[in-house]
Amino acid sequence: MFCVRTCSGLMGLRAAPRVRSLHSFPGITIDEEVAKLLALKAQIGGDNVKHQFVLKTAKGTRDYNPKQMAIRERVFSTIIGCFKRHGAETIDTPVFELKETLTGKYGEDSKLIYDLKDQGGELLSLRYDLTVPFARYLAMNKITNIKRYHIAKVYRRDNPAMTRGRYREFYQCDFDIAGQYDAMIPDAECLKIVHDILSELDLGDFRIKVNDRRILDGMFAVCGVPDDKFRTICSTVDKLDKMPWEDVRKEMVTEKGLSEEAADQIGEYVSLQGGMELAERLLQDQKMCRSKQACAGLSDIKLLFSYLQLFQVTDKVVFDLSLARGLDYYTGIIYEGVLTQAGVAPGSTEAQNGTPAEESVSVGSVAGGGRYDGLVGMFDPKGRKVPCVGVSIGIERIFSILEQKAEAEVMYKKNPKLLSQLQHCEESGIPLVAILGEQELKDGVVKLRVVASREEVDVSRAALVDEIRRRTSQA
Amino acid sequence: MFCVRTCSGLMGLRAAPRVRSLHSFPGITIDEEVAKLLALKAQIGGDNVKHQFVLKTAKGTRDYNPKQMAIRERVFSTIIGCFKRHGAETIDTPVFELKETLTGKYGEDSKLIYDLKDQGGELLSLRYDLTVPFARYLAMNKITNIKRYHIAKVYRRDNPAMTRGRYREFYQCDFDIAGQYDAMIPDAECLKIVHDILSELDLGDFRIKVNDRRILDGMFAVCGVPDDKFRTICSTVDKLDKMPWEDVRKEMVTEKGLSEEAADQIGEYVSLQGGMELAERLLQDQKMCRSKQACAGLSDIKLLFSYLQLFQVTDKVVFDLSLARGLDYYTGIIYEGVLTQAGVAPGSTEAQNGTPAEESVSVGSVAGGGRYDGLVGMFDPKGRKVPCVGVSIGIERIFSILEQKAEAEVMYKKNPKLLSQLQHCEESGIPLVAILGEQELKDGVVKLRVVASREEVDVSRAALVDEIRRRTSQA
Repeated sequence: MFCVRTCSGLMGLRAAPRVRSLHSFPGITIDEEVAKLLALKAQIGGDNVKHQFVLKTAKGTRDYNPKQMAIRERVFSTIIGCFKRHGAETIDTPVFELKETLTGKYGEDSKLIYDLKDQGGELLSLRYDLTVPFARYLAMNKITNIKRYHIAKVYRRDNPAMTRGRYREFYQCDFDIAGQYDAMIPDAECLKIVHDILSELDLGDFRIKVNDRRILDGMFAVCGVPDDKFRTICSTVDKLDKMPWEDVRKEMVTEKGLSEEAADQIGEYVSLQGGMELAERLLQDQKMCRSKQACAGLSDIKLLFSYLQLFQVTDKVVFDLSLARGLDYYTGIIYEGVLTQAGVAPGSTEAQNGTPAEESVSVGSVAGGGRYDGLVGMFDPKGRKVPCVGVSIGIERIFSILEQKAEAEVMYKKNPKLLSQLQHCEESGIPLVAILGEQELKDGVVKLRVVASREEVDVSRAALVDEIRRRTSQA
Repeated sequence: MFCVRTCSGLMGLRAAPRVRSLHSFPGITIDEEVAKLLALKAQIGGDNVKHQFVLKTAKGTRDYNPKQMAIRERVFSTIIGCFKRHGAETIDTPVFELKETLTGKYGEDSKLIYDLKDQGGELLSLRYDLTVPFARYLAMNKITNIKRYHIAKVYRRDNPAMTRGRYREFYQCDFDIAGQYDAMIPDAECLKIVHDILSELDLGDFRIKVNDRRILDGMFAVCGVPDDKFRTICSTVDKLDKMPWEDVRKEMVTEKGLSEEAADQIGEYVSLQGGMELAERLLQDQKMCRSKQACAGLSDIKLLFSYLQLFQVTDKVVFDLSLARGLDYYTGIIYEGVLTQAGVAPGSTEAQNGTPAEESVSVGSVAGGGRYDGLVGMFDPKGRKVPCVGVSIGIERIFSILEQKAEAEVMYKKNPKLLSQLQHCEESGIPLVAILGEQELKDGVVKLRVVASREEVDVSRAALVDEIRRRTSQA
């Protein structure tokens, strides 16, 4: 049963399951066993244990090792390349701002802001995004016209989910256009940028959801939501990508005191998805028409789609009335780029228009943004406005995906022994080995070896991909 | 009196004085007048002033505009190029660490650490340098051998002096070598890197001061400093680059309770500067010889200089017994790169050996580092040591210099009117204009115009540079 390494040798499959196993199966990895034993030893007061403290990074943060840095720098260079092609210059701002600079900009999310301790002097907070510091920068320097990009870390005391790339310290890659231009042209450019970057990074299929704050507000008005509840209802609608409609409805009615009738009317609208034709249809909608601002928003969505057609990016863009980004400062168009599960046939996203597609599961937002025409004015002593629109690429999830991709490795040896290859798999936690020897070649099969149990099974080549997927996606 | 623009037109001279004028002469710049008036208006409750808050960045921090970012990226690329030539990979760590990770690493400087507010959860602090996070990273990942660089911002609640490039948020560019090697080879490589980078950045003349923590400790011992006062006396000696010896002596005696005799003996040693021959001389010194660790330090300095000779960098390196970097974690060689005033003739630094040179005024430290063999062990549960040596380039002062250099500008117009050029100077705060017209060409002079007073004076070409220097360095 010896194996000839006719192909590139051995491919270790170390994708998602490895990451999961480190977090969901305590007791399985050697690292965790060692950590447990060390902790026990520390408890009973081991010999010579001089320094008793936890050796870790702060909750929700991570280090980058050199391999991860290489991936990060490649992603940055792709993103910066795109930003520069679109004519942006770059700026930098401090990691903390005066606390009052951030006050009143983030709605209910403000509770997630990291404050610095009062050590005498100014009250400071870590930046929550790069948009508010950008607006502060524009107002402070009286700049009314700039295309700028800014790549830097931001800080949110959110519940981290690091296997899915949700951190408390994470990078944002922001591109913003400040200045007075013809309607929807800068907005369309931002969407084009999201499209270009997500395509170039080759992360699998994606969709860009688009909506407009004015459509949301108008919809709330015509559905009978009281004015003072717009923002809080809006942030409940924002949870639709994480919770089913029933739970969102429940939160609206029981927690936020909205009438059942209003909630149901909202429910009808937020199930709508489409393209330019949906905007046209809603412009004819009797109820929606009663809101002037909803009409203004719908006309802009229509105009936006006409530019997106010119940019040839409409296949990925969906007008989605459930999109409701929580931040207080948005005033017009809002959008979000989401990766959809790999394996969705190209083109099938178009079939989703109109109905939520079963086969396309969102694996998380990787880009977002919108128009914020009032934010700079909040910093100007005379309230002078500078219209702005921008987009933020969140790359931690992108890193997670690319890191997992990078984990398939090749042994740097001309003729490595099978045993040493298997040993390498055991040591580095690769769960499955595909073996292609003389016998397997003859039989038209591939031998799959489960590294942990050493169990081996022959699989037909046609069934190989499915079999690997099945085995690596097991809980 | 019309002027022909025969040369490149108009050169605005906007070097140091502009920066200074913004800070030291309130009332002179228009910006400040406007700010004053706005503040007054706000006090009396101006009309329509909606948002009453200070539009600024936090104390000791700054924004970078696109022009400044271009300079910054050029500096980074020079530094990273050098780090990579020397075989380093890069890592990144979070901006904050568990508070206890930083505890006990910085001696008296610990009071300058920014703490985060306790918002429930872990107690966190902003990183004070990149060295302690690096040591934590090594211990956490059980790495015993790496050459790594890390470029990131660090945070110190120090008294800012922003015109001289001293900020509370500033970049460090760190290069460190961890691992067991033959004595003084990695240490010499770090000095070579400082030498390469400061030469390549073309910042004018510089010196690299070298000392050894063991020589300092041994010196303190043989001078009669009690063991428990080593660290505090060391941090007083560290002030010798900012205060004259008399003040340092006073602090030792009156504040820190050192005997006058001990202080005077220290005074004799810390006035010594030299090269390998000074190390050899001190190895023969009757008093110094009584300390084994001083001898070990002196032997290593001697060995270090032999490697530096091979690297051909001894012309810039000075063994200086007054160098005493304050951080607690250094265990061996320490060093600091300082820029010396421009205008010092090349080579004259060598003449300084032995006596403090009058003509070479330090304009501030731009690099520093040393050996810290115990730091990683402080994080390891078993106290396992990983010997480390590293260097940190502090680039804010370098930015200040390069930014001022970049402030000489050219008007982008083929044939700009003199009047519009003068207007541009008035608007942008350029203090002096050099005018070279037909008459001036004939007379062999240049007309200097003081923009603020509109006073004009003819200066011979030979005297021009001195005259400009005199006028721009006034107060």
